[in-house]
Amino acid sequence: MTLVWCAPVTPVIGDHEGNRHRVLAAISDAVTEGARVVVLPELATGGYVFTDAGEARAAGVAADDPMFTGWARAAGAAVVVGGFAELGRDGLLYNSAALVDSGGVRAVYRKTHLWDREKLWFTPGASVPPIIETAYGRIGPLICYDLEFPEMTRNLAERRADLIAAPVNWPRVDRPGGEHPPETIIAMAAARTNRLCVAICDRAGTERGVRWTGGSTVVDEHGWPRGPVTEIDLRRGRDKWLSPRNHALDDRRPDLLSGKEDGGMPLVRGS
Amino acid sequence: MTLVWCAPVTPVIGDHEGNRHRVLAAISDAVTEGARVVVLPELATGGYVFTDAGEARAAGVAADDPMFTGWARAAGAAVVVGGFAELGRDGLLYNSAALVDSGGVRAVYRKTHLWDREKLWFTPGASVPPIIETAYGRIGPLICYDLEFPEMTRNLAERRADLIAAPVNWPRVDRPGGEHPPETIIAMAAARTNRLCVAICDRAGTERGVRWTGGSTVVDEHGWPRGPVTEIDLRRGRDKWLSPRNHALDDRRPDLLSGKEDGGMPLVRGS
Repeated sequence: MTLVWCAPVTPVIGDHEGNRHRVLAAISDAVTEGARVVVLPELATGGYVFTDAGEARAAGVAADDPMFTGWARAAGAAVVVGGFAELGRDGLLYNSAALVDSGGVRAVYRKTHLWDREKLWFTPGASVPPIIETAYGRIGPLICYDLEFPEMTRNLAERRADLIAAPVNWPRVDRPGGEHPPETIIAMAAARTNRLCVAICDRAGTERGVRWTGGSTVVDEHGWPRGPVTEIDLRRGRDKWLSPRNHALDDRRPDLLSGKEDGGMPLVRGS
Repeated sequence: MTLVWCAPVTPVIGDHEGNRHRVLAAISDAVTEGARVVVLPELATGGYVFTDAGEARAAGVAADDPMFTGWARAAGAAVVVGGFAELGRDGLLYNSAALVDSGGVRAVYRKTHLWDREKLWFTPGASVPPIIETAYGRIGPLICYDLEFPEMTRNLAERRADLIAAPVNWPRVDRPGGEHPPETIIAMAAARTNRLCVAICDRAGTERGVRWTGGSTVVDEHGWPRGPVTEIDLRRGRDKWLSPRNHALDDRRPDLLSGKEDGGMPLVRGS
């Protein structure tokens, strides 16, 4: 069993030094409690609701910044997946997630599906997420809106991820009473249809008038949310048999969907 | 607004004549109440829990059977989507859905993802679902387990379906208190990520010891279940803009997922 810990830290836009301390404290606290996978929100080190591109850029951090040495020192036996504004060597700004363990930065993923005003200051990533081998299972990141593309969650399952670690910043939207947030429902469906776990770390509270959903939770391989801190065997989803004759991935029918936009079946017109 | 009506008829295995009457009565009742889209369960005309292939075959009906003339007469201004065991001209048995209006059978879809023992007596379909143009919007079918493949629901959205009409037979599975059935959650996610409606007609009660979920409901284009009988504008999901800068389909990144099994990004090994 692995203790998965979603740590919804609250950065303060512009307070770069303070944010570094807040994130380090969140990692340290989780590790002290026995966390083996720690997930932080999207853009955890700099905030989200930027006024303009200049302010976003001021929050930028390079992937080889000493900040991550701090994460690695704090990580202990844990793997940390956290969002940050990445200032690329190419001079561009990305909405990224770093996967860090005691050895340092293992991989960086650049968000490929940008939401709304993010498009004004971030460049979308050009690659599917990396998957890292860890002592607790294979972990791959997705960032916020990425999760709403079933192609992406499927891609991680096809590449044998055990856990999707998802830094998010979900602005709160209306929903009927008694329902989960819609983004949670999408993550639950992704977990169940792919038989893998999804650990979501969302923001809580508000930032510059944007109220966050507070949707942090770990979704198990059956699609049920277990709360933001939970012990779970991430490898249980490797058994993708759903019945004696059904397998979540092998039952796919790529033969039906071979790239033709009409899917091989014309629209039936008139009667 | 279109009155969508899920009619969870209960067939009796072996009572072929009685089943025809039950289905006709369900269609007539719905149409009398003003239904414009009527969805029946999977295998509504013959039952589901067969003992062997012979019993399944005995429930078989050809796609040009006079039974469908009855559906067409009862349909009035409605479109009927219902499941039946289809005895093909090729001599094979399919788990199919007929789309019928007053003009007769508009299209037949053969379930492409068979569940468990269905594989013992049915042949899987070889084509993606048809989509028919109707006065109420574009309607395409999926049958039960098909819904659990996000590739399939996406395919229907890409082909501009407004409504997925889904005959299902969901055996009841355990779920945490307060949660929707897992199959419902998957349909809710499919509706929201694709911005289309999903009308599910499930069985209720039990059949030969199998307890059904009773999950009939119409899911709107935002992913919220509205109950088994509801008035809804099926075309509302044609607006796929999610924000001033985000579109549910145009934001996909097929460039990332171009058929390479590794998705273009190697597994990161060791540290």
